Amino acid sequence: MNRYPKEDLQKLVAQLAGGMGVPAEDAALFAESLVDADLHGVPTHGVSRLNIYLQRIEAGLIDPKAALTVDRGTGSVLALNAGNGLGQVQARKALDLLIPMARENGVATATIRNSQHFGALSWYANYAASQQMVLLAMTNGEPAMSPAGGYEAFFGTNPIAASFPTGKGFLIKIDLATSTVARGNIIAAQKKKATIPEGWALDRDGNPTTDASEALLGTVLTMAGHKGYALALMVEMFSGVLSGAAVGSNVGSMYKNLDRKQNVGHFFCLFHIDAFLDYAEYLRRMDETIDRIKTSKKRPGVVEILVPGERSARTAETNRAQGIPVSDETVAEIEQWCSRLKIAFNCHEVVC
Amino acid sequence: MNRYPKEDLQKLVAQLAGGMGVPAEDAALFAESLVDADLHGVPTHGVSRLNIYLQRIEAGLIDPKAALTVDRGTGSVLALNAGNGLGQVQARKALDLLIPMARENGVATATIRNSQHFGALSWYANYAASQQMVLLAMTNGEPAMSPAGGYEAFFGTNPIAASFPTGKGFLIKIDLATSTVARGNIIAAQKKKATIPEGWALDRDGNPTTDASEALLGTVLTMAGHKGYALALMVEMFSGVLSGAAVGSNVGSMYKNLDRKQNVGHFFCLFHIDAFLDYAEYLRRMDETIDRIKTSKKRPGVVEILVPGERSARTAETNRAQGIPVSDETVAEIEQWCSRLKIAFNCHEVVC
Repeated sequence: MNRYPKEDLQKLVAQLAGGMGVPAEDAALFAESLVDADLHGVPTHGVSRLNIYLQRIEAGLIDPKAALTVDRGTGSVLALNAGNGLGQVQARKALDLLIPMARENGVATATIRNSQHFGALSWYANYAASQQMVLLAMTNGEPAMSPAGGYEAFFGTNPIAASFPTGKGFLIKIDLATSTVARGNIIAAQKKKATIPEGWALDRDGNPTTDASEALLGTVLTMAGHKGYALALMVEMFSGVLSGAAVGSNVGSMYKNLDRKQNVGHFFCLFHIDAFLDYAEYLRRMDETIDRIKTSKKRPGVVEILVPGERSARTAETNRAQGIPVSDETVAEIEQWCSRLKIAFNCHEVVC
Repeated sequence: MNRYPKEDLQKLVAQLAGGMGVPAEDAALFAESLVDADLHGVPTHGVSRLNIYLQRIEAGLIDPKAALTVDRGTGSVLALNAGNGLGQVQARKALDLLIPMARENGVATATIRNSQHFGALSWYANYAASQQMVLLAMTNGEPAMSPAGGYEAFFGTNPIAASFPTGKGFLIKIDLATSTVARGNIIAAQKKKATIPEGWALDRDGNPTTDASEALLGTVLTMAGHKGYALALMVEMFSGVLSGAAVGSNVGSMYKNLDRKQNVGHFFCLFHIDAFLDYAEYLRRMDETIDRIKTSKKRPGVVEILVPGERSARTAETNRAQGIPVSDETVAEIEQWCSRLKIAFNCHEVVC
């Protein structure tokens, strides 16, 4: 593993995306999103995915120049079509459309169809927070989990995310797959040839497995049994059914289906805090809540009670200072693309 | 346990609420909500709670005549004050305010502060569905769960609920406490003097317990560990912090604090389906999704894959035909109130 300065890495990723036909402004957004995921300690959604995005562009399965178009616009709702463009770019542009609507009406919602895996939430969350807004986000994804009682992959790991500005120097950032574990962790275990813990997944015949490759052919279990199933379904309804995107197992797999588009659907709901209460009062209430949680009684052996988003903010601080960690495998992939696209690998390794 | 016709029970509950000063129209809404919970198989939120509501009205802890007032109204957002009225009545009135806003702008959101436990979701869900709308609802509640790493009751069991109309004769109705189990189940176990399963709760010193009374003095565990904590926090932010209601352990307990108000906060977000896609197309997509889920491969021994809301619709059908089941204990409580308020116990037992 090497560490690189954020700016170097971001510039290089943008150059590579540009080399594959992504317009400069969009390539910059795309690179910002990927590196931001690594910055915040979510490498499964970061530059480790650059290779597959570029492969899919090359295969004609992602349109690098796609426009974001409006299927339907009503008051404070936009039903958007990503035109099979890069998820990160189209979702960020959707937020840019929603922000003035939320400022006007207090709340604004968008569905996005014809999209791809759109990366990690932190990037959208920080953007919404910079506008003094709360973001609720959901997305469906490639089939990974079955309904309770079944063993056929239907749902993606269908995450729910919400972010809330605070006065503490970090956001409350809730971002969870409705599976026992994010599929990225199983992919990571497979890459490392490691086993996975029991209770994470079933194999293709519906039996429990600790083999990452078998798990990726089978199904990931929903968190908390029936409750996780219900939440995964909720995410599917908001981001798949309501958006007009592919639903359930009709969503294409990023890694497995190199012959068809993903047609992922996203759902954003943006709330302007001032519509509910004065922002200063909100921050006072929010920070007091955080203080109360952090100072509540700890179980034996627990050093600190954390709130969601706190750890990721600390990781970002470390990575900003020490450089963004990138695995050897990902570095090798990037070097290959550099060589193919005749772009210099201009990242200066940080020596800590 | 006895069974009573829905109409009889509803009329009696309304009379009793009226007897305690709730205006006739509000008493009818309140009774409809309680009996609807029993109808749909959620007796923990039904007429079994009538006694405590009436006690709290009597103690001056609920204002039976409270108006619902607007703290702040911006475009498609209402920040509402329930004035310490009955949660069910005020929340239903909030929906009545939101429906035309959602029809106009596609989405409408309300927070409600100064409220109480507002009952079961089915009632709101069915109402929203009758308007061809999707409802997302959250509420905080009396302290029951600790943050991960802690053992001090801070969060309520903070449920998340969402409902989606279908063409199948039932709604997709997601309604789950972010705890391993709804607190009502522990209260029910305590009433029956039964033990609770391991993994549901900790006692007041943070140790695992199977004693329902000890559990009610301690904390209920969040579902799926850290993920449940994150979701409970999300619910607290939307319904507690953003609404201006009490937050976390400042929320009063319905049963334990007979000396102070609850100040519960709710959050509603209502989506008009036509703003996203044509309702007919929505129904087609929804029903197809349900069919695909229900016909997906079943694990050995599984007879049927259910979707959330299906079982509750079947229970409602049974209870509509056979009468609403009411426990002996609840019947005794109701009879006492009838006797005190000089109202005839005019429910005709259904003999099945």
